[in-house]
Amino acid sequence: MVLCEKPLSLDGPQGEEMVKEIEKAGVPNTVWYQLPPRARRDARQADHRLGQARPDLPTTARTFLQDWTISADLPQGGAGLWRLDAKAAGSGVTGDLLAHCIDTALWLNGSITDVSALTETFIKQRTHTLTGKVEEVKIDDACTFHGHFANGSLALFESTRYARGHKALYTFEINGANASIKWDLHDLHRLQFFDYSDEGIVRGWRSVHVTDGDQPYMKNWWVPGLQIGYAESFTHQVADFLTAVGEGKPCPPTFRDALETQYVCDAVLASAREKQWKTVKKVS
Amino acid sequence: MVLCEKPLSLDGPQGEEMVKEIEKAGVPNTVWYQLPPRARRDARQADHRLGQARPDLPTTARTFLQDWTISADLPQGGAGLWRLDAKAAGSGVTGDLLAHCIDTALWLNGSITDVSALTETFIKQRTHTLTGKVEEVKIDDACTFHGHFANGSLALFESTRYARGHKALYTFEINGANASIKWDLHDLHRLQFFDYSDEGIVRGWRSVHVTDGDQPYMKNWWVPGLQIGYAESFTHQVADFLTAVGEGKPCPPTFRDALETQYVCDAVLASAREKQWKTVKKVS
Amino acid sequence: MVLCEKPLSLDGPQGEEMVKEIEKAGVPNTVWYQLPPRARRDARQADHRLGQARPDLPTTARTFLQDWTISADLPQGGAGLWRLDAKAAGSGVTGDLLAHCIDTALWLNGSITDVSALTETFIKQRTHTLTGKVEEVKIDDACTFHGHFANGSLALFESTRYARGHKALYTFEINGANASIKWDLHDLHRLQFFDYSDEGIVRGWRSVHVTDGDQPYMKNWWVPGLQIGYAESFTHQVADFLTAVGEGKPCPPTFRDALETQYVCDAVLASAREKQWKTVKKVS
Amino acid sequence: MVLCEKPLSLDGPQGEEMVKEIEKAGVPNTVWYQLPPRARRDARQADHRLGQARPDLPTTARTFLQDWTISADLPQGGAGLWRLDAKAAGSGVTGDLLAHCIDTALWLNGSITDVSALTETFIKQRTHTLTGKVEEVKIDDACTFHGHFANGSLALFESTRYARGHKALYTFEINGANASIKWDLHDLHRLQFFDYSDEGIVRGWRSVHVTDGDQPYMKNWWVPGLQIGYAESFTHQVADFLTAVGEGKPCPPTFRDALETQYVCDAVLASAREKQWKTVKKVS
Repeated sequence: MVLCEKPLSLDGPQGEEMVKEIEKAGVPNTVWYQLPPRARRDARQADHRLGQARPDLPTTARTFLQDWTISADLPQGGAGLWRLDAKAAGSGVTGDLLAHCIDTALWLNGSITDVSALTETFIKQRTHTLTGKVEEVKIDDACTFHGHFANGSLALFESTRYARGHKALYTFEINGANASIKWDLHDLHRLQFFDYSDEGIVRGWRSVHVTDGDQPYMKNWWVPGLQIGYAESFTHQVADFLTAVGEGKPCPPTFRDALETQYVCDAVLASAREKQWKTVKKVS
Repeated sequence: MVLCEKPLSLDGPQGEEMVKEIEKAGVPNTVWYQLPPRARRDARQADHRLGQARPDLPTTARTFLQDWTISADLPQGGAGLWRLDAKAAGSGVTGDLLAHCIDTALWLNGSITDVSALTETFIKQRTHTLTGKVEEVKIDDACTFHGHFANGSLALFESTRYARGHKALYTFEINGANASIKWDLHDLHRLQFFDYSDEGIVRGWRSVHVTDGDQPYMKNWWVPGLQIGYAESFTHQVADFLTAVGEGKPCPPTFRDALETQYVCDAVLASAREKQWKTVKKVS
Repeated sequence: MVLCEKPLSLDGPQGEEMVKEIEKAGVPNTVWYQLPPRARRDARQADHRLGQARPDLPTTARTFLQDWTISADLPQGGAGLWRLDAKAAGSGVTGDLLAHCIDTALWLNGSITDVSALTETFIKQRTHTLTGKVEEVKIDDACTFHGHFANGSLALFESTRYARGHKALYTFEINGANASIKWDLHDLHRLQFFDYSDEGIVRGWRSVHVTDGDQPYMKNWWVPGLQIGYAESFTHQVADFLTAVGEGKPCPPTFRDALETQYVCDAVLASAREKQWKTVKKVS
Repeated sequence: MVLCEKPLSLDGPQGEEMVKEIEKAGVPNTVWYQLPPRARRDARQADHRLGQARPDLPTTARTFLQDWTISADLPQGGAGLWRLDAKAAGSGVTGDLLAHCIDTALWLNGSITDVSALTETFIKQRTHTLTGKVEEVKIDDACTFHGHFANGSLALFESTRYARGHKALYTFEINGANASIKWDLHDLHRLQFFDYSDEGIVRGWRSVHVTDGDQPYMKNWWVPGLQIGYAESFTHQVADFLTAVGEGKPCPPTFRDALETQYVCDAVLASAREKQWKTVKKVS
């Protein structure tokens, strides 16, 4: 069995090869996006509240903002800083951060069909840790893109490592006709939920402290009010993976699932490079 | 007609005299607690959601914290600082700040029957603005008290002008068997509401932005999302007062209503002075 | 003197004519963007904290999300709903909502040079209030665009009237090398500020309650802790306008200032229509 | 070595015996208040910012509110519900919840000298799980108390299991002359901090996301922005305990440290029972 760190690959073609090989080998596989089968199923159920009858309405926005590469003195490459070296990382924030946001979006709201993107490399040169030489920085420091989901809703994504004050502002928000949901990794144990069907005089965004026993996974942890942390999101994925293996079922996101995220990243980077709208390749 | 700034009087006996005189004169009257008839009626309606069937359960807590008298160099007395001079103000935070909290509590949750209080004067002497002499400070700088409401619920109140960081932390919270509400003057256009009957997976405190047209008073102001400020709370009380006068009805809080707050303040100050529980005098 | 409701005009060419005529007439003029001279000057000062030495770093994001046109039964046109009628409104959210965001951005961060935009009209037909007939909806229901500021920073803007749960989510955020600021119209009396130079162990986003006397305009209102509302933002602009008139100075945003916003809107709508990047026309 | 679950004992006299025995045995010991030596030391350091020059000013408030015993149908006693059985638990919220708050307060602000308390048992009878009979409930369902710290500051504490909407609202707040700090277990990875010495125009409460490597303990966990959960607070205490054992030093809170909390609980319960102020016994 293979549990692969995300993103699946440096780009789509490499990902296709990986999918081909792992499926030929018939090995149980999953990619560490920390949104494993049960979370995905539950997320989809939550999504049903948003207003299925009007699939054209939702607008979704997702961000992943950090601030750790602002200093021009920070080198690139090596064990701690390979994320700044395009040869090792493939891309910058697109593959490292937006891949998370895209994976979440694909599961909650379906396929993305086309995109228009903008990338920027703010610091053009950095000393390379391994060579000691000042080398050109080839990763994208920031990336924004918008586009369409197959269901007709709009997509808006943003990522940067230059947003002073944000350590890991990985958020998502989906607006449906009837309801909306929001989430932020900084407070991963809280979900914001708005239900338009609430009586007007007491209608407002709800801050759901996701620690009651009737919440997904939570009956295995502490009493209500006591939160889990980042580590437990991996525990959940392992649990779901082992359950799936035991049942002889695939454990999403499989390599094949993760390939779709790769295709979106490829279209985003191509769009930014060519300053044109790009269609996203479909997983065959 | 007389619209009297709060609190009604320096103490209960003085308040009794004022009630006697104004009722003899038959003049329409109200006290500027900024929680006029319609707000009071609506607040009571909201209260009904909290669980009428179990009137014994709610615990209520109210605070009014400020931080503007921390400096020992601040003088007392005169036009700007009469609140620090017991001769002019009657008391310190009890009459100035807690009177607001008590007025709100009496309307939302009924009478308070007994109290145990603690007061403190942190800065013992201050220069008096008018005399130029260093004089003893006789007001209470801070006051906390707990006690019982007639309906069996518990009361907890706190006020100080030494709580660094709080400009006007005038809050209330009522916990019922079914629901709870919270409010803070710092964001006067928001009400926090928790409804236990919400489905578990999406249950949480709601932050209600009180600007929709179906909210009390709000159809007379801006479109949803655009808040009113402190000034408009006076406009509301004038509007309700004039409406009441036009209908020949009393406009709560009348002098008589405000006398009950005075009696609670008297009991609080006496309890703190004598370090004993005190029963609150009833308005005859 | 002319105080013109925003946006200045239906499009750039109409705006150019207005600028020409008002300047020929030599009449004092301003446009109601509610961010008058003193606010603009103070905002720029705040901006200086963000890291002037690195003008290339800031990324700015601005949104204006509402949810009042989700229902397909809502008609278009007439006194209450002219904003849905392209003949009366010129455009949809771009001119009505994003114009506010663009005006703020131009003042805080300088000119926008090029944009790539996406617009959508979710509800394609609505009954017209005046004709009673079902007519095509020609406004943009949603608009997102990204692009570049002249100073090298990136721009990201989003607006829709279909974001369930948001009444007037007019926000801005600017990330500098040293600091960041955020704001949301829903709580217009609060500014979020992050200062990287704070000592690490107590560094965090500050929620500034803008009511102390040393805040712009606030010494004319209430004591600290007591907020103003939406109405007072107009009072401020009138005050600044009259002061400017008295001093014989222009009161930004003048018609000429507002024309630049118009040019950005034109480029945004053209980009969305043609699915191409567009350069923003410069105010001569 | 003995790691004892909190509170130390059913009451003070039992605690004295435990201290005597463990000290006679010379066994390393600690009590699971989850605020181990390093956290206590760091908390004290934070406290120094609050204004040492004016030790008389701080007012501290601590709450621990829950809502899980509101239903009158909930039985008492047995493995899951021994907390409602006075024979097993000693007391109700005082020993179970306020003991946490008192332990924190003693470390951050020193000894408590006297208290005035109010307790209530809302549900007078519950079926006992073990006997099957309806029995009198002898625990305190709610408790509020105020009093004095030895340093002259005021104490205010509140706890209940009937506060609808609060799962584990364990908070503390300390107001100093120069600064204030607040914390809430619901978001245990955030600390609220207010520094009066900040420049006025950008002064506000800071929300510190306690995940940077320079925060206590955090360099051993994830990268900035990724929070730990409730479980890790035990890991920290074990780490500190083992370090202390290795160095041959005591690991606060030792049994002796925890005895002081017991004495405060005893005074609180006695004060509530007799409706009088009580002096807290000193640890010899």
